This record gives sequence, C-alpha cells and structure tokens, in this order.
Amino acid sequence: MKKLLAVIFALFMLAGCAPTPTQPAQPTSSEKLDYEKQSEWEFTSGKMQSPIDIVTSTTIESEDALPLTLTYSDTVEKVEDNGHAIEAEMEGSAMINGRHFELAQFHIHAQSEHTIDGKHSPLEIHFVHKAEDGRLAVVAVMVEVGTENPAFEQVLETIGSEHHIENFEAAELLPKTLDYYHYLGSLTTPPLTENVEWYVLKDTITISEEQLTQFHTYYTENNRDVQDLNDRHVLSSI
Amino acid sequence: MKKLLAVIFALFMLAGCAPTPTQPAQPTSSEKLDYEKQSEWEFTSGKMQSPIDIVTSTTIESEDALPLTLTYSDTVEKVEDNGHAIEAEMEGSAMINGRHFELAQFHIHAQSEHTIDGKHSPLEIHFVHKAEDGRLAVVAVMVEVGTENPAFEQVLETIGSEHHIENFEAAELLPKTLDYYHYLGSLTTPPLTENVEWYVLKDTITISEEQLTQFHTYYTENNRDVQDLNDRHVLSSI
Repeated sequence: MKKLLAVIFALFMLAGCAPTPTQPAQPTSSEKLDYEKQSEWEFTSGKMQSPIDIVTSTTIESEDALPLTLTYSDTVEKVEDNGHAIEAEMEGSAMINGRHFELAQFHIHAQSEHTIDGKHSPLEIHFVHKAEDGRLAVVAVMVEVGTENPAFEQVLETIGSEHHIENFEAAELLPKTLDYYHYLGSLTTPPLTENVEWYVLKDTITISEEQLTQFHTYYTENNRDVQDLNDRHVLSSI
Repeated sequence: MKKLLAVIFALFMLAGCAPTPTQPAQPTSSEKLDYEKQSEWEFTSGKMQSPIDIVTSTTIESEDALPLTLTYSDTVEKVEDNGHAIEAEMEGSAMINGRHFELAQFHIHAQSEHTIDGKHSPLEIHFVHKAEDGRLAVVAVMVEVGTENPAFEQVLETIGSEHHIENFEAAELLPKTLDYYHYLGSLTTPPLTENVEWYVLKDTITISEEQLTQFHTYYTENNRDVQDLNDRHVLSSI
C-alpha cells in the first residue's frame, strides 16, 4: 500500500469555479509578474502566528478530521529549564490527521498560551512532533487546578537533575478524549516558524494547587501574547 | 472512524534523545527569552522557497509516503492568461499523503520551474490543491516534447475564450504512474507563501513540438529561478 501509487479519474460534471490561491482571476497589467526582476518580488509572511484566542462559537466543524493516536514512551530522558520553559525529552510516535509524526519533546508554559473564548488556563503543555518531511505538529493540553497529577509530580521532581524518569505514565498528561481544535500557526518562540499544525485539545487535565505553586517557582509568565487570526479559521474535530 | 478520537499508550523503553526543534538544549543567559519584550522577538522565514533543483542522488526514500489519488472533473470552466501563467479553472478532489484536498486550479509554466539534476523540462503543469485547514499541496507534472496531447490541445484552443471545455480527459495531463518527489516549499509567485507541500511527479507527459511552439506564443520564461534547499531534504516516494 505504501508503495502503491494509484490514480482514479472519475468523470463527473461540476459546475462553478474553485478559488485560485496563487493568482488573481483578472490581473491588470500592473499585476503582471516581471520574471526579469524576480529579486524584487515581495515575500509576504507573518500572518499565521501562534498562539491565538479560540472563539468556540466561530469554529468550523471539520469534514476531514482524523483521530489523534499518540504512542509515547514510558521513559523521560531529561527534564530541564531551557530558559523558555520546562522541557522534557521523551520519545514517541503519533498518527496526526492521517500522517505519521515522531515526538520530539514536550514543554510547559504558565499561564496557557492559547486562550479559549478569551480565558487562559493556569498551564499549557505542548507535545511537539515532527514528520519526515519536516512538518511540525503540536498537541496542546490545557491544565486546570484540581486533583494532583502523579506524572506532573515526577516532572517537577526531575527538573534540572541528571535522572531519567522511568515508569512514566504519559497518559496522565493527556485527557481521556482527544477531541481538538485545529488550525495552522507557528512556533511560539523564535524563530516563530510558520509551518506548524496546531491541535489544541478540548478536554483538560488537572494538577493540584500545590503543584501549580511549585511550577510557579520556575515560570509564571512564559506565554506569548495571543496573535491575530487574520484570514485563518479554526476547525473543530466534532 | 472520523469522529473517533483514540489514544494508545504503549509502554516501551527507548534510549536516546529526540531533537528539540523549538528550544536549544543548553541555553545561556543570553538565550533566555524576555516575555516582557515579545515585540522584539525575531521571526525567521524565507528559507523554504520553491522551486528547487531536485538532486536525485540525494533524495531520501520516504518511510511514510502514501499514494496520490486524484479525482478531477471532466469540465474545465475557463482557461485564461492571468499575467503569470496560462491557468485553467477545474474542480476535483484529491487524497494526498493521507489527507483530503480540493483542486483549486491548474496552470502552466514554460520552461519548468523545478529542475531534475539541473535539467529543465520544456513545461511544468501545477495542479494546486487546498485542504480545509488552508494547507496547499501542488502536484507538479513535467512536460516533454513527443506525442501530441489531446487534452493540452483543448487547453490551447480555449485560452482567453468564454467557452468551457467539456469531455476533458484530465488523465492526459498526468503520467500513468504517480511516483513523486516530496518536499516542503512555497508558492512560486508572490506572496511566495511558505506553507506548500510539493509533489513533483517522476514520470512525465508529452506534447508535440507544434504544441510547445504554440504555447511559447504566450510564455517562454514564466519560471521562477530555483531556490536554495537550505536545511530541507527531498523525499522520494519509492
């Protein structure tokens, strides 16, 4: 199947015209491209940044959403304060919207970077994945205050130490259901690369008030400001 | 299946550490991010431009490549000279590397924009697709001189007219096998957006010498210069 490249041409009649993202439909002479002066062409970017505020009433129900399947290791290699966030090195693989990614790391922001209907959560965990073509996909988990979280406790206890975490239950850092909001955005720290697929989970996990207080001894405000949505829209997996 | 979001946690031991694309492993104080001065953060881009030269000896065999399934209409709504290229409006849907896209249009460059081992083809056709999240994917077909192409003839005859093309055999503009080179790049005309998945087909199609001469009455050099590959790599579907 992997090697099989198939083409199916269904002959059917379709009325109407699709949008044309690369070129205007009715160019004027001023829009004609000068291929002799390509170095003067303008490269427009910066309109697809993260995080964003997710306005739930304006999300669009996805027609094509596929499940997230996250298969993470039970060993965390290292937990450190990298100057931006508390970051953990852990391996894993993921099927995200139909494609295979490898987990690169996860890291934690306080308060949350994304907001849901204008509201921050106390923390947000980012599971950063990379596909073989270089594509990045981040699964974001919002963290609320409630029941103590054993896996989060292991992370806290290991920050800056030389120890691995073994018998790590990564499932405790993810909600039971993986319904998500999806949009195209960027890294939230420099170089702010705009090549990132975001999957912000709708369900949340909890840590205790004491665990939040302990995390705040490292970071209280390592969240980037929310960015303009511009021409993008946010899809909802259900 | 579409609505089912499942998570599987396999508990397995993994040695070694994955790369961390968002943050350095050992920051110095100068690398610490100042969240009070976010507007000074540098957004780096422009390193993932298209087209490129595909050096076949350095492509990497893909582990994850999925087939292209292209289901195009038999009606071309319009063919026009848009100031950049000859462009045709046609509907269609596609499964590209595991995800559903809609065809937006196809257009034609002379000579080819991509080069294979430094060599241009006389023409290159770009089938531009868009996913529901805004992602763009372009299937590129290299065109050589040989047997006359009936579908290409229909396109030539319709440029600038008000006529539809009916009973259009889109398959004649695609090779029989859809093996591809894949990399992440950009639009090749402004705004040169870096959010584009490229699938450059390995097999080619032909048009006649007379058809090429006729196309050259519209364009002979509407190809952007090849761009640096930088840190990217090109995957091969087989």
